[in-house]
Amino acid sequence: MDKLRAVILGATGMVGQRFVKLLANHELFELSVLAASPASAGKKYGEVAHWYIEGHMPKETAETTVVETTVENVRKAGGADIAFSALPAEVALKVEAEFAKAGIPVVSDASSYRMEPDVPILIAEVNPDHLNLVKLQSRRGWKSFIVTNPNCTTTVLVMALKPIDNVFGIKRVFVSTMQAVSGAGWGGVPSMAILDNVIPYIAKEEEKVQAEVLKIMGSLTGEEVKPAGFKISASCHRVHVLDGHTEAVFVELAKKASPEEVAEAMREFKGRPQELKLPTAPENPIVVREEPDRPQPRFDRYEGRGMSVVVGRIREDPALDNGIKFVVLGHNTIRGAAGNAVLNAELLAREGFI
Amino acid sequence: MDKLRAVILGATGMVGQRFVKLLANHELFELSVLAASPASAGKKYGEVAHWYIEGHMPKETAETTVVETTVENVRKAGGADIAFSALPAEVALKVEAEFAKAGIPVVSDASSYRMEPDVPILIAEVNPDHLNLVKLQSRRGWKSFIVTNPNCTTTVLVMALKPIDNVFGIKRVFVSTMQAVSGAGWGGVPSMAILDNVIPYIAKEEEKVQAEVLKIMGSLTGEEVKPAGFKISASCHRVHVLDGHTEAVFVELAKKASPEEVAEAMREFKGRPQELKLPTAPENPIVVREEPDRPQPRFDRYEGRGMSVVVGRIREDPALDNGIKFVVLGHNTIRGAAGNAVLNAELLAREGFI
Amino acid sequence: MDKLRAVILGATGMVGQRFVKLLANHELFELSVLAASPASAGKKYGEVAHWYIEGHMPKETAETTVVETTVENVRKAGGADIAFSALPAEVALKVEAEFAKAGIPVVSDASSYRMEPDVPILIAEVNPDHLNLVKLQSRRGWKSFIVTNPNCTTTVLVMALKPIDNVFGIKRVFVSTMQAVSGAGWGGVPSMAILDNVIPYIAKEEEKVQAEVLKIMGSLTGEEVKPAGFKISASCHRVHVLDGHTEAVFVELAKKASPEEVAEAMREFKGRPQELKLPTAPENPIVVREEPDRPQPRFDRYEGRGMSVVVGRIREDPALDNGIKFVVLGHNTIRGAAGNAVLNAELLAREGFI
Amino acid sequence: MDKLRAVILGATGMVGQRFVKLLANHELFELSVLAASPASAGKKYGEVAHWYIEGHMPKETAETTVVETTVENVRKAGGADIAFSALPAEVALKVEAEFAKAGIPVVSDASSYRMEPDVPILIAEVNPDHLNLVKLQSRRGWKSFIVTNPNCTTTVLVMALKPIDNVFGIKRVFVSTMQAVSGAGWGGVPSMAILDNVIPYIAKEEEKVQAEVLKIMGSLTGEEVKPAGFKISASCHRVHVLDGHTEAVFVELAKKASPEEVAEAMREFKGRPQELKLPTAPENPIVVREEPDRPQPRFDRYEGRGMSVVVGRIREDPALDNGIKFVVLGHNTIRGAAGNAVLNAELLAREGFI
Repeated sequence: MDKLRAVILGATGMVGQRFVKLLANHELFELSVLAASPASAGKKYGEVAHWYIEGHMPKETAETTVVETTVENVRKAGGADIAFSALPAEVALKVEAEFAKAGIPVVSDASSYRMEPDVPILIAEVNPDHLNLVKLQSRRGWKSFIVTNPNCTTTVLVMALKPIDNVFGIKRVFVSTMQAVSGAGWGGVPSMAILDNVIPYIAKEEEKVQAEVLKIMGSLTGEEVKPAGFKISASCHRVHVLDGHTEAVFVELAKKASPEEVAEAMREFKGRPQELKLPTAPENPIVVREEPDRPQPRFDRYEGRGMSVVVGRIREDPALDNGIKFVVLGHNTIRGAAGNAVLNAELLAREGFI
Repeated sequence: MDKLRAVILGATGMVGQRFVKLLANHELFELSVLAASPASAGKKYGEVAHWYIEGHMPKETAETTVVETTVENVRKAGGADIAFSALPAEVALKVEAEFAKAGIPVVSDASSYRMEPDVPILIAEVNPDHLNLVKLQSRRGWKSFIVTNPNCTTTVLVMALKPIDNVFGIKRVFVSTMQAVSGAGWGGVPSMAILDNVIPYIAKEEEKVQAEVLKIMGSLTGEEVKPAGFKISASCHRVHVLDGHTEAVFVELAKKASPEEVAEAMREFKGRPQELKLPTAPENPIVVREEPDRPQPRFDRYEGRGMSVVVGRIREDPALDNGIKFVVLGHNTIRGAAGNAVLNAELLAREGFI
Repeated sequence: MDKLRAVILGATGMVGQRFVKLLANHELFELSVLAASPASAGKKYGEVAHWYIEGHMPKETAETTVVETTVENVRKAGGADIAFSALPAEVALKVEAEFAKAGIPVVSDASSYRMEPDVPILIAEVNPDHLNLVKLQSRRGWKSFIVTNPNCTTTVLVMALKPIDNVFGIKRVFVSTMQAVSGAGWGGVPSMAILDNVIPYIAKEEEKVQAEVLKIMGSLTGEEVKPAGFKISASCHRVHVLDGHTEAVFVELAKKASPEEVAEAMREFKGRPQELKLPTAPENPIVVREEPDRPQPRFDRYEGRGMSVVVGRIREDPALDNGIKFVVLGHNTIRGAAGNAVLNAELLAREGFI
Repeated sequence: MDKLRAVILGATGMVGQRFVKLLANHELFELSVLAASPASAGKKYGEVAHWYIEGHMPKETAETTVVETTVENVRKAGGADIAFSALPAEVALKVEAEFAKAGIPVVSDASSYRMEPDVPILIAEVNPDHLNLVKLQSRRGWKSFIVTNPNCTTTVLVMALKPIDNVFGIKRVFVSTMQAVSGAGWGGVPSMAILDNVIPYIAKEEEKVQAEVLKIMGSLTGEEVKPAGFKISASCHRVHVLDGHTEAVFVELAKKASPEEVAEAMREFKGRPQELKLPTAPENPIVVREEPDRPQPRFDRYEGRGMSVVVGRIREDPALDNGIKFVVLGHNTIRGAAGNAVLNAELLAREGFI
């Protein structure tokens, strides 16, 4: 089978770079076009992308000329069968619709369409059935569709919650995050702001997490996702870490479970990506560590090439009925962003949506 | 009135240094003796203390010869009317008892005696009446007594919870902490462990917080403190910050309150130290910030010379009935340790206990 | 004597904030107007300045409305007898000339006029006689004049070199710097750029240091400063430090001197600010530390309220004839910027230039 | 050919871990025994080594029981044809001699034997001919011999100096370092010491660098290494970086050369390891970057799998005749320690010394 031609929208930022890295030598996709803002268009990728990723920028990519993010420019520059979007939300709203309308399916990391009723927020291991929502998007007059990623914090959290919900049921969740600076982009967090400091606030993050978790873990009935029935509260904070979001989670279960049983449910958790052996799927979506002081971002963020989340410190919670608390960590620009989108695209391809 | 002669037990560590700083030119106490481990005894304080505090070590103190921490040595070196203890827990158990037995009251930052039924864990603004417990300690055959500080994380949390409990009642608390490295002492957290990292574990910290909060906020009836009746769960984490513990708190109130009402209760909170105008008492035990992104440790830890806690982001909690969440910050080696002990000692002196 | 009315040009940035702090309750100057870019003009200082300094922004200042940086606006807003400029170089070129032309003397931290032959680069302890240059500026048709600060790295270096040159003569200097992030402004160094990293480059810094040192240490003969006759080479690097530039210096002396003799020369160094007891003058322009591992930025940057430089590790240099090497540290936004300018202004006032 | 059995002496520390990683699946050596201090002996490696390296500890190694570092224990535990030593200097002095005496060649990262006249300090690309010194060690009554690594800072520096000396000659060198915390071992640099700080001192480092560079770059004539004839001065500093030493270098050449010519000499530099295609040899011992702001430790330390040094900012030096200055970076625990030793061992094996 020929590889699908891929365009990256917003190719120069942190998540765009991760797309570049993940799509290099990919077995299903080939990087066809790099699109970015007018400020970068016309220049070589190597000149405009501030490469922050381990290892070198792929040479060929460095030499590629960036085009502006319009359907026409992308067509002229080589065309695309799929678009990976790392656009800022305000740009994504317009641009992603244009691509979907023009028949190019969009796998997006932007927040713009997440809460639209006919757009799935997809984690391939968690809610692959929500993909059926995309069929409804033809009503918008689009030839193709948009599938969104959750917010990075949401993804890490939902990965850990899903097996708990499957096996024991969830009634209530509190999550307190310690998030990496890469989530805000290259210049997003000045060193003067975070050196010897914590910033206990990330704009709109808590609202996103609270809404998205319930949608992703909700059930698709007919044409509608019914949000999950549990309660959730988030408190989000930025800490002095490069990559890797750490989240302290307190969960009230529907049915009593010991920490060992919860660990077991997490370890056994697999999804469609593992069944289909999708190229980007980690062998273990969740890695459970037994040490008292893990997970830690510097040591654990590349577990499963950044696609696994790592859980530790599973213990009883004394303030909740059937309470469990634990710590979960995930790589915010891989599983929390580009990697999740690529995995979603692989699922779309293998399940015949594209 | 003559000043009371003070000995610092464990004078060379982080908390010991804070005692030195706070007792320099104190109006009630004069620094009489510096006591530390045998390794430091016989040497000048300036040679053995790795001074980490802003400003210079007081010159006279630098020249003082450190003695070993025994009652006899302290007597020979100048005597003491009060002992401020920054001893490690395993040493404190024996040494603090010796001082109390010998008639020297001990104000301690060690955890050894905190959970003893006849020993108060004291925050002068919160539970000054618990001081009456010390009278029971004569039954141990002691001529004097021990008063303990809470764990640093506990202190910061209780300061914020107390006015809420006073005005609205508390039913349940979840707290997730982001703690500074100074809490572990000079060599406690290697740079290789925390650079670009979070360590989601501090040994015994969660258990301490959970037990101590309930004791401090409990009620003294007769000879016994009845622990507070609410539920509490803690998750404790170390982050890359020098000084200042940041805590995300989720609280279920007994009675509904808006964020503004909670802020108001916190702003109006005063205690005995403010009434008595104790030298180390901050004007405002709690400072409430309105900005969306405060408190932050680097900017807010010295509020009230490190004796105030700073609260921000008071908002409704969607997962709790009558739920409120907020962030509180306090200086872990001042309000969370030495400063709290000095304030307790001031209360003891002014209330006639010493 | 009435205080002189002061305007701060570029009041919202790092150096502008230091001006605000240093001019609060100053005995010679009173803060009259805060001027900044059009983006900030019309708003309250408290809203537009991202206060990064220890302690609170002065309340009155927080409430002051910022005006745009023109002579007319400043006059309307209260007038000024002196302007302290923290403008970016490209803006300073035009704006500072307008103020000087209009009769308002400018004490500037910008680089724009430093290398002009009729403009002194002034360190009050080092080259107070260069002030006479300002008389030549009337030839520009200006009613008043501009006096500049050196670059922050230059200031710290020259402070340490001056007593060596005075006593032993200097033939050659190599300097390798480790500079703080605050030198680049609030957003100048992203956390993603500097976390776990060194950036071995600061644009134009080395050229500035090399040229400015020679001018400042040169001799004013008639209407001209003849640059100092020694050779100098700089290598400049950014490290993960908030405030405080650390510089490793290798010096070839004209005449042999032991490390002790160099230390002695540094300790004895005093200048006009000390003679005149200027308000911002540190008692000791240079503090020499004997410990093997000092100076260190976190511990030593506030020496002399940030106006002293701290020297340590003075030792022989095995690769130079009469070689000496040492480490010098100074606070880059106080002695290296705002503090030096305020001290210069005090000298101007006391010597009758304004 | 059968693989040579290797023992790691001091296997649990930073450098010991690097040995473990480099010897896993090595084509010439197989890891036979892990030896460490009595405190670790008898325990599994996975329990006693605080693994700080990217990726997981090899599983088999984690399960291996550590033995105490004596010849007899090593023989009992599987024997060794070569010993890789990461011992502390004071231990190495005795233990390495015992292994050499017993017929086990030692490739050492310890400083103990470096300055002995009959012991080479070896960088395989730089002074492979110095290996002939080892024959003289039989006079000590040893059946085998010791080959030492330079200090990590020396290695990085010499790599960059060698091609310059080869092509243009060197007369004088100044080096100012910014060294990573891993050089001091896991607990060597407390976070409280280095957060928001620079430590301008590393015990004995400058003396080591100054002496070792001259020995390595000296010429072996008969039975003696005549030190190189140039002058050298070092100033060594610790910065807040995990891995990777950055060094600012000022060099006086014997013969004038442009920065381009120096870059060319560096790029073309190859040695015996490249000729012999040794398994650990990097393709390019020196990588020269053209960007104005490279090399940077976080981005460049893994160049050539940590075995290349990266040079940038080659420019003229205005304070030296025929002066050149540049910045060089190398991975301190790979090229600066374990990797260099493994490369040396490969050279020994291929050249028939073992």
